[in-house]
Amino acid sequence: MIRAGIVGGAGYVGGELLRILLNHPWVELAFVHSRSQAGKPLTDVHKDLIGETKMCFSETILPDVDVLFLSMGHGASAEFLQKTNLKSGIKIIDLSRDFRLKTTDNDFVYGLPEAFKDQIKTASKVANPGCFATAIELALLPLAAGGLLQAEAHVSAITGSSGAGQAHSETTHFTWRSGNVSLYKPFKHQHLEEIKQTLQRVGSGEQPVIRFVPMRGSFTRGILAAVYTKAKLNLKEARSLYEAYFLQHPFVFVVEANPDVKQVVNTNKALLHLIKEDDQLLIISVIDNLIKGAAGQAVQNMNLMFGLAENVGLHLKPSAY
Amino acid sequence: MIRAGIVGGAGYVGGELLRILLNHPWVELAFVHSRSQAGKPLTDVHKDLIGETKMCFSETILPDVDVLFLSMGHGASAEFLQKTNLKSGIKIIDLSRDFRLKTTDNDFVYGLPEAFKDQIKTASKVANPGCFATAIELALLPLAAGGLLQAEAHVSAITGSSGAGQAHSETTHFTWRSGNVSLYKPFKHQHLEEIKQTLQRVGSGEQPVIRFVPMRGSFTRGILAAVYTKAKLNLKEARSLYEAYFLQHPFVFVVEANPDVKQVVNTNKALLHLIKEDDQLLIISVIDNLIKGAAGQAVQNMNLMFGLAENVGLHLKPSAY
Amino acid sequence: MIRAGIVGGAGYVGGELLRILLNHPWVELAFVHSRSQAGKPLTDVHKDLIGETKMCFSETILPDVDVLFLSMGHGASAEFLQKTNLKSGIKIIDLSRDFRLKTTDNDFVYGLPEAFKDQIKTASKVANPGCFATAIELALLPLAAGGLLQAEAHVSAITGSSGAGQAHSETTHFTWRSGNVSLYKPFKHQHLEEIKQTLQRVGSGEQPVIRFVPMRGSFTRGILAAVYTKAKLNLKEARSLYEAYFLQHPFVFVVEANPDVKQVVNTNKALLHLIKEDDQLLIISVIDNLIKGAAGQAVQNMNLMFGLAENVGLHLKPSAY
Amino acid sequence: MIRAGIVGGAGYVGGELLRILLNHPWVELAFVHSRSQAGKPLTDVHKDLIGETKMCFSETILPDVDVLFLSMGHGASAEFLQKTNLKSGIKIIDLSRDFRLKTTDNDFVYGLPEAFKDQIKTASKVANPGCFATAIELALLPLAAGGLLQAEAHVSAITGSSGAGQAHSETTHFTWRSGNVSLYKPFKHQHLEEIKQTLQRVGSGEQPVIRFVPMRGSFTRGILAAVYTKAKLNLKEARSLYEAYFLQHPFVFVVEANPDVKQVVNTNKALLHLIKEDDQLLIISVIDNLIKGAAGQAVQNMNLMFGLAENVGLHLKPSAY
Repeated sequence: MIRAGIVGGAGYVGGELLRILLNHPWVELAFVHSRSQAGKPLTDVHKDLIGETKMCFSETILPDVDVLFLSMGHGASAEFLQKTNLKSGIKIIDLSRDFRLKTTDNDFVYGLPEAFKDQIKTASKVANPGCFATAIELALLPLAAGGLLQAEAHVSAITGSSGAGQAHSETTHFTWRSGNVSLYKPFKHQHLEEIKQTLQRVGSGEQPVIRFVPMRGSFTRGILAAVYTKAKLNLKEARSLYEAYFLQHPFVFVVEANPDVKQVVNTNKALLHLIKEDDQLLIISVIDNLIKGAAGQAVQNMNLMFGLAENVGLHLKPSAY
Repeated sequence: MIRAGIVGGAGYVGGELLRILLNHPWVELAFVHSRSQAGKPLTDVHKDLIGETKMCFSETILPDVDVLFLSMGHGASAEFLQKTNLKSGIKIIDLSRDFRLKTTDNDFVYGLPEAFKDQIKTASKVANPGCFATAIELALLPLAAGGLLQAEAHVSAITGSSGAGQAHSETTHFTWRSGNVSLYKPFKHQHLEEIKQTLQRVGSGEQPVIRFVPMRGSFTRGILAAVYTKAKLNLKEARSLYEAYFLQHPFVFVVEANPDVKQVVNTNKALLHLIKEDDQLLIISVIDNLIKGAAGQAVQNMNLMFGLAENVGLHLKPSAY
Repeated sequence: MIRAGIVGGAGYVGGELLRILLNHPWVELAFVHSRSQAGKPLTDVHKDLIGETKMCFSETILPDVDVLFLSMGHGASAEFLQKTNLKSGIKIIDLSRDFRLKTTDNDFVYGLPEAFKDQIKTASKVANPGCFATAIELALLPLAAGGLLQAEAHVSAITGSSGAGQAHSETTHFTWRSGNVSLYKPFKHQHLEEIKQTLQRVGSGEQPVIRFVPMRGSFTRGILAAVYTKAKLNLKEARSLYEAYFLQHPFVFVVEANPDVKQVVNTNKALLHLIKEDDQLLIISVIDNLIKGAAGQAVQNMNLMFGLAENVGLHLKPSAY
Repeated sequence: MIRAGIVGGAGYVGGELLRILLNHPWVELAFVHSRSQAGKPLTDVHKDLIGETKMCFSETILPDVDVLFLSMGHGASAEFLQKTNLKSGIKIIDLSRDFRLKTTDNDFVYGLPEAFKDQIKTASKVANPGCFATAIELALLPLAAGGLLQAEAHVSAITGSSGAGQAHSETTHFTWRSGNVSLYKPFKHQHLEEIKQTLQRVGSGEQPVIRFVPMRGSFTRGILAAVYTKAKLNLKEARSLYEAYFLQHPFVFVVEANPDVKQVVNTNKALLHLIKEDDQLLIISVIDNLIKGAAGQAVQNMNLMFGLAENVGLHLKPSAY
């Protein structure tokens, strides 16, 4: 059994980690830490877990674990690791933005299994990708890896409200968001850097140009990204390229029908659908922002780091409707 | 022209007052006060009003008005009136809970035109009813006035999120509320007292017993109330009673088809639909909580207090879909 | 392994059966029949199942199964069983209304495990309860079983759109239903009969009087029922009664916090919360209409009929947000 | 008074025409025709209009009108005009696609007042623009008219469900669409041709290249379009250009804050917001698809055709929340 601890278990992503790990056949949950909820039953915060656990949020970080999931929000992970003297040998999976960008003193592996599976398998520290980043990188990986991402890529992508976390703001207020849609951070979303870094690393040198228009949708879960770029491949060639690329990746499917977000909600899957029109190749990519875009991918990374099959514990019932 | 001022114009109800009064043919808006937004253009807060007004929120209360709408939240109205030395002759329409319950030192008239139109016409101070109270009282007024409300009345009613105001809370968070439904304050909602008071006053003496189960719905605007009680009248008699009662009231309609909330959203109307089954008379009542349940009813009261036709300025385009 | 067949697998309930049975450790899915979709891959209809099955909808009913789930719509089950010569020994779990009401020539056991677990364990034919019926019966079972349901019970309950199935109608049209709420079939919903029958059977003789006001909500999954009746028990006694009653039933939880529907969406759980006010005992009951209200309960019944633990294959990841 | 008739008054757009024209101070509604609803009260279909009209849908087209609005669906307008012998002098405003594209035998003026106001003023036949077309053309008109639309324009736009009309389909089913998002007709939406035609006509010759990715959103009303293209203008210059262009157009506002769709729902306004990032100029454009995108724009055209102020009868109360 893998003894796992969650640091920051009271948020949406922490909750999804819990929901997945509680049913994972090879995981024993050692503790779930939360500064704000310490001492309370998990089910006080995650009320849907009534009957499935009697654990309480812990105030302290137990040293005796095999893996730590850090789900504390951006900035807090780096601070935590600096201040905390962890036993050597504990593997770390960080769900914040803190370690996604490569720098000389950053020894985290970027945790997108569809790009860096081998490195993840031997890593002791993994930086879990951002949700938008996951959807967009998956859409472009085969092109980038094949050296075929040479023109600008145009991305419009829309996310559910859970991506914004539990914090209150005008744009997470029901009266504002219900039946509404809006843009935010066009051309400068914080995930752009990791997207460009990943595509450059799997590709042939130069950073691609990505025009990214993110939207807030009137739904709680899921991301749909529409990505297009000029490409010489015809549709058949493109499909072959994508199918070949993802053959060894059990959660990504190149599908024949135009997908919608609800097909992947509450699962760790990504669906990709290709369309060719004139000289433009369009890739539609859908994921659940909290699962393949966060907690599920973190568990997928854990499976790889511990030599398990990639999809153990990740056969989740879709919510579908 | 009636010179009107709004005290507390930055909230949802204040916004609806603005939207109605800006188009009211006999009203000149003298000022819109807001402590939190003073100095800013109204359109900074109510962005849908771009192009319709260049007014700014004022810091002060101009003394030279004919009517003041108080839309400051519960408790604040009473405090405001105590501290403020208003010119005599200024009429007051208060949208808070502060003056709805009759006490010896409360000289406000309860502003439900369908119950107390004559008093409102000559009133200088009106306490505008609560939103749930409006929907439920309209459903029971004809029975109560006819001395026919002798058994318990059972009420389940569901409200849109705008009824909770702009404040942030778990239950107004989009991720929580979208696709959700829940009860709150069953049997002890704060509107129960004014409902019982109104029904007693139009009736024959004793306070009726009202069992009231309020729900929070996954929508932003509107209230639906389902109200039933034992009644001897058959359906035809009940319809005649209701139609006769509301004959002189231009915003209440006894309708033949089972209504839904969206039929009245963005209007000042109330629809009532009657069903008789065994010995139970069921009344379905739908209103827009922000209009007939708040700002629209306040303007209806203003019209009456100034001798105008009750529905001037209240021919609002329904949003319908 | 239990060989299971689904007759009518293309609808919402059929889809949920699939999602659950595909991951059930003791079930082998022999066939999934659909008249309208015969020959097509299951994933053409249930697109969220991509990657989880390559089965196609069958045109024929394979004889060699241990259990048949009938999920064909009301009326069709009875017709199917009359016309079809099934091998003896095949157990039947019917999800339609056809066999829920006891008559002299109806040998189906009513499949509410919380009321009739022993009969279900030895049954060869089970009639799965209706969704509203499940939520409401669970709320009243302990009272009825204790002979304490002596006064009228008042029920308002609201359902998600999936309860209406895939058929198109005005009230399932997004433009109509989004942000809307309405009543339907007040006092005469088709589930009333089975509710009264169940409560009478577990109780002491007379049929209870149930006033039932059903509503259509602006959400896709879940049912919330608010049920109240006059009761002599104080709150503590009522809680003890309920906790004792459900002690042996792993899916029903008497909870201390006021529940909302999303706490149980995508699970087989039912949450009950009790409130006492004056002489009224209020029970709030929430379930997922497609799972505890249909497919999940059917699998729970199957588990019982085959001597398995009641909750095998039913540890489903909640969708939570 | 202008005597107006509506042909095809039972749909969403017909309903919006009714809601606007019933309150228009210079319009007398002569008849509202509907083949499917002939003889029934308007309020049987448009139940929100209870109390505002007692008209019934007519079976016949009265000859004695000044203007006819055709709101019958695509294809039906052309057929109707061919078969019907209208009195000369009756002005026609067609809301279908049938006459939007210029051909040698098409004498309809394209009814986008912000592009062709002078022609509309003297037109006897106007083809009302499509909803997506309106949002996108408004976003690009100043660039195109200034000869500055020289690079490809990239458009992602999302629409509410009412754009799809009352017909039933999988993608208008509440259980499917609620909380969902999807693409449709990427790069080949039927409005592309009229968009390119308009931009070419106001510009300097060549047809622009428009990459258009349309999406279906989880809301009922409104369109948001995000449009970007390479442009030499800096932000200040671009704003000046846009402000100057729309100075004479009372419904279009160049706004300083990033807009959301609900700011214009239930109004005839369009809000445009500009952002410059690197060499890309981004224009966010929001309208109500049924009003500025259909019925409101039709009335705006009528006002111009009859010499009225452009905004008479179009001071509509926003629904805002």
